[in-house]
Amino acid sequence: MTTVARENGAVLDLKFDANGLITAVAVDADNGEVLMVAFMNREALERTLQTRKATYWSRSRSKFWVKGEESGHIQEVQDILIDCDQDCVLLKVRQKGVACHTGRRSCFYRSVQAMSGPESLKIIAAPLVDTKAVYAAKK
Amino acid sequence: MTTVARENGAVLDLKFDANGLITAVAVDADNGEVLMVAFMNREALERTLQTRKATYWSRSRSKFWVKGEESGHIQEVQDILIDCDQDCVLLKVRQKGVACHTGRRSCFYRSVQAMSGPESLKIIAAPLVDTKAVYAAKK
Repeated sequence: MTTVARENGAVLDLKFDANGLITAVAVDADNGEVLMVAFMNREALERTLQTRKATYWSRSRSKFWVKGEESGHIQEVQDILIDCDQDCVLLKVRQKGVACHTGRRSCFYRSVQAMSGPESLKIIAAPLVDTKAVYAAKK
Repeated sequence: MTTVARENGAVLDLKFDANGLITAVAVDADNGEVLMVAFMNREALERTLQTRKATYWSRSRSKFWVKGEESGHIQEVQDILIDCDQDCVLLKVRQKGVACHTGRRSCFYRSVQAMSGPESLKIIAAPLVDTKAVYAAKK
């Protein structure tokens, strides 16, 4: 497919990286807050489209990762948008519980103040839930 | 730095990929709309922090890319957030003009309907500006 067709057409033609992945950004379907950024391969996107539960590819564990499968903090997918060059998807989700494994609603809980130093990051959100307890309860 | 320190601390400790890059998501500082996703290396983030103009690393051109340097469609950076594992930044920006080179406000102007087929994508936003004219006028 030509670049023009990929960018202007109505045909899905994913542009994967060297590892067969695309970037996936999950945002709250209601207020637009960016919750997390992860990766998908083709099958993860297919599973997400079919099940409407956000399913990523875990690079660290080399396996499919149904978000919330252990914690219960699933993401119900309302819509999936794709960007101009088709190497990134945007998931509009209804987030159950919290998105971040640290217990925050969003993974973006720190603001960059400087490139170095002991206070180069400013923490702007506290954990809402004790995720250790959440995971322990599921065992 | 330990994973715990990286995730909970107040010290910037970027986790780059094999190419020395992190993902950068730009959202509208006012309404939260996701505008685009690109990449940064350490110096791109440093330049962004210093100049408050979103500066990415262009993988296709292998050079720094001050967003809008040709089109005038710059992004004034209001805040920079970083995610839990420090491999992705979220830029809250004031976008001049449009973010997408196709002339749309956002690069995410198509919704994924299916994994294949002639109408696997549904176009949900039309170009607001003729970007060819914008770039030609700058020559």
